[in-house]
Amino acid sequence: MSQLLEQLIDAFRVLPGVGQKSAQRMAYHVLERERGGGQRLADTLASAIERIGHCERCRDFSETPVCPVCASASRDAHQLCAVESPADRLAIEQATGYRGLYFVLQGRLSPLDGIGPRELGLDRLAARLAEGEVQELIIATNPTVEGEATAHYLAQLARQHRVRPSRLAHGVPLGGELEYVDRGTLSHAFGSRTEVQS
Amino acid sequence: MSQLLEQLIDAFRVLPGVGQKSAQRMAYHVLERERGGGQRLADTLASAIERIGHCERCRDFSETPVCPVCASASRDAHQLCAVESPADRLAIEQATGYRGLYFVLQGRLSPLDGIGPRELGLDRLAARLAEGEVQELIIATNPTVEGEATAHYLAQLARQHRVRPSRLAHGVPLGGELEYVDRGTLSHAFGSRTEVQS
Ligand SMILES: [Zn+2]
Ligand SMILES: [Zn+2]
Repeated sequence: MSQLLEQLIDAFRVLPGVGQKSAQRMAYHVLERERGGGQRLADTLASAIERIGHCERCRDFSETPVCPVCASASRDAHQLCAVESPADRLAIEQATGYRGLYFVLQGRLSPLDGIGPRELGLDRLAARLAEGEVQELIIATNPTVEGEATAHYLAQLARQHRVRPSRLAHGVPLGGELEYVDRGTLSHAFGSRTEVQS
Repeated sequence: MSQLLEQLIDAFRVLPGVGQKSAQRMAYHVLERERGGGQRLADTLASAIERIGHCERCRDFSETPVCPVCASASRDAHQLCAVESPADRLAIEQATGYRGLYFVLQGRLSPLDGIGPRELGLDRLAARLAEGEVQELIIATNPTVEGEATAHYLAQLARQHRVRPSRLAHGVPLGGELEYVDRGTLSHAFGSRTEVQS
């Protein structure tokens, strides 16, 4: 087999859930039938890696220093929703009618992996809560052990700044990943979120 | 969501078996955790599309006008194995000890889709058989209706040029795709191929 083709198959394995066999199918499919689409993928991927960074306000992916959601005057700055990942943020945005702002942790507390408050940008979140505009912190971490520990930490942080913490209602399956919850369940859980009791 | 990010998600959908949800996971995964690997994928994909064409002799993918297998002096030019796709060729090469040459049809006869002998390069195959060096044409098309029709056509072509046609032995599951057959079965089927009776 051509060495470049082997390199291409190997390169596809960087994608999640793609093993040797799928990588081979992808390489062959693109070269046999989708050279135009493959070229577009190569170009878009290179541009995205070069131009997409993180929003200074919410840490979500953004092509600009401040993302369009954070910069929008039509969003409600009294509500801030904390999520673990950009995918979770997108799932909530697509499934619910939420009009507040977000804070993307880009992870969850995991002391054994060296992921503490600083790695999740919680100093920046604290500063944000201290500004006084946020009235409710909607904690939408995943219902896993680490997600729960993170939620607990966030609720304490909110109370320190006299911000009301709330969590998504039961409905999100235990042990599940928010990103894969169906829209209906997620929308319901978001709508019936409950205030966090101490 | 950033427009470039949307374009990236859309671009990933060119890959086989990748829907909206997987495309989104791929884009996020690369941007969150694999920027180096993503850059390598973009570069390799662009190079492969630019530099990988088809071998003049066997029609397999190749970076050079004639591929290394066709150019090799250590392969047995008396045997020629006809397969539908580069993936099938690779599967045979990896599973069996075959030391002959290949001819990659890049498809199968399918008159309704406008795929006839010319589209499969059978004029070139006929010229090859007419050269007189090939003694056996091993027909390794898939055991589907169209694959069988193609095999029948190839067997006739071989006989016209006094070349012995053979087929893979039973063992390849009916209706299955060669590419997904396990190595053991494929190796056995290849080893016990039978001469085609008229
Ligand atoms: Zn933002
Ligand atoms: Zn060749």
